[in-house]
Amino acid sequence: MASRTPSTTADRDDRTAAAPGAGRPASGDRPRRRLSVDERREQLIAVALELFSRRPPEEVSIDDIAAAAGASRPLVYHYFPGKQALYEESLRRAGRELSARFEEPMEGPLSERLFRVMGRYLDFVQSHGPGFAALLRGGSVAASAGTSAVIDEVRRAAHDQILGHLAIPSPSAGLRLTVRAWIANAEITSLEWLGERSLPLEELQLHLVQEFVAALTLTAAREPALAAELAGFFADERPDGPTGRLVRDLAGLLAVPGIVEAVTALATAAPGAAVAGPVVPVAVDEPSAQATADSAPSSNG
Amino acid sequence: MASRTPSTTADRDDRTAAAPGAGRPASGDRPRRRLSVDERREQLIAVALELFSRRPPEEVSIDDIAAAAGASRPLVYHYFPGKQALYEESLRRAGRELSARFEEPMEGPLSERLFRVMGRYLDFVQSHGPGFAALLRGGSVAASAGTSAVIDEVRRAAHDQILGHLAIPSPSAGLRLTVRAWIANAEITSLEWLGERSLPLEELQLHLVQEFVAALTLTAAREPALAAELAGFFADERPDGPTGRLVRDLAGLLAVPGIVEAVTALATAAPGAAVAGPVVPVAVDEPSAQATADSAPSSNG
Repeated sequence: MASRTPSTTADRDDRTAAAPGAGRPASGDRPRRRLSVDERREQLIAVALELFSRRPPEEVSIDDIAAAAGASRPLVYHYFPGKQALYEESLRRAGRELSARFEEPMEGPLSERLFRVMGRYLDFVQSHGPGFAALLRGGSVAASAGTSAVIDEVRRAAHDQILGHLAIPSPSAGLRLTVRAWIANAEITSLEWLGERSLPLEELQLHLVQEFVAALTLTAAREPALAAELAGFFADERPDGPTGRLVRDLAGLLAVPGIVEAVTALATAAPGAAVAGPVVPVAVDEPSAQATADSAPSSNG
Repeated sequence: MASRTPSTTADRDDRTAAAPGAGRPASGDRPRRRLSVDERREQLIAVALELFSRRPPEEVSIDDIAAAAGASRPLVYHYFPGKQALYEESLRRAGRELSARFEEPMEGPLSERLFRVMGRYLDFVQSHGPGFAALLRGGSVAASAGTSAVIDEVRRAAHDQILGHLAIPSPSAGLRLTVRAWIANAEITSLEWLGERSLPLEELQLHLVQEFVAALTLTAAREPALAAELAGFFADERPDGPTGRLVRDLAGLLAVPGIVEAVTALATAAPGAAVAGPVVPVAVDEPSAQATADSAPSSNG
């Protein structure tokens, strides 16, 4: 990733490109000065990131990037071997920027910390998502080992940040899986949202945080060590924070006719012989015959 | 997708390939007969699917497929233009097989239906996942518009099946988003599981179903129309099914010291002025300054 030293030809090219009228200038009407090698490289990446954030890679050409940077096509090729390299470098910058947004002081209720992070994350999704959505969804023509590595790194950064805030010395495999699954949930939900925008962004932000609280609670229900930690997290939460609102929403659900009765019946019922395992074993072949036999006595109403 | 008619050359080739000793025979020691055009095509796809299920595409060659099918390399090329075409056709078959596993009779408690489907799904992940994992994770060299379309179709089939079982006439955007996010959760969780196998498959099966029940409950807590439906779903659930076990696990959590107190405090507290919106607004710039100011009075225990 070291910058190359431009040849004399490229220097000349650079001067030409920066001359008035040689393309759309990147820096408006400010007085022109010759960009250094590093500055030019950074400028090309910034311009490319801007374009790749708005459109899928197949709709961005080297000519588009050169025009937006006020540079010539050969100049762009002098710094980068081709569009894919520039795309990957842009993505790397975007990944670094996104990972930086995950950083949050270790202060205040956990759900409020996550809420702030998700605000910054969703802002990033809005500004960079349209162009990178295809890549994240899979099947982009620009997908490569390089883009994959960047995406993995961002996911790992998110994972590490969350586990850092949970501050649990030895997180279980179950908890790690919960965190990764929630990250996937946040990713897919925000990408879907980008396409539909079917609810206000602030609601999405709140829902994602509440889903994390719920996923953590479910995991704690299976893991006694985590349950003890959960008590501490809940004790720090505030009524007007995401967890407080979630608790009240769920309490409100219990007022819906029939729900308290059904939940109470399930909570207090003496389960049958199958209590050690769920009703239906993992069925591989002919599972519907098995299923029908098992569920026959149950009514479907 | 129509089968091509092999030329005379390919016919001869086919006979040669099927002769004893011409490769690893696909059908063991049974008496050989010449395969029809369609049979040979199906056989090649089946053999390719088997190989592509076990290894990433870059580790499977046309020669491997030819050898496993007891065919010659030219014969394989006669039916398929190249490895990518054979890979995509294999994936298409795999996708169709997986989608068929989502089908489940509309009988019995919802969580038990989903539990059966997840058993078949996880069985599929075990048998086909290792080879297709890279594709699903994104960044596979074999990713293309074709593979993307297959994956999207499987996700859509899962989504449609779930909404079909929920049998809600006009599912809200929020519910659809919940279903899609849970599908992403199931996908990522099972792929992660494949790499680590850190818990028994039956537990993963149960957890995924319970996470769906939890996600549905959370969505219902925000949507009154869905809350009414939720009462009906819960009324059908049985104590020894996934939902019954979840309810008891969560009830058990309330016995952990401190949790009932914290949850009760959140449920009954009169929230402050910020009740209409969460504590911290969507912060784009300098969110940590905002955050520090807001959370300063709160202790960090």
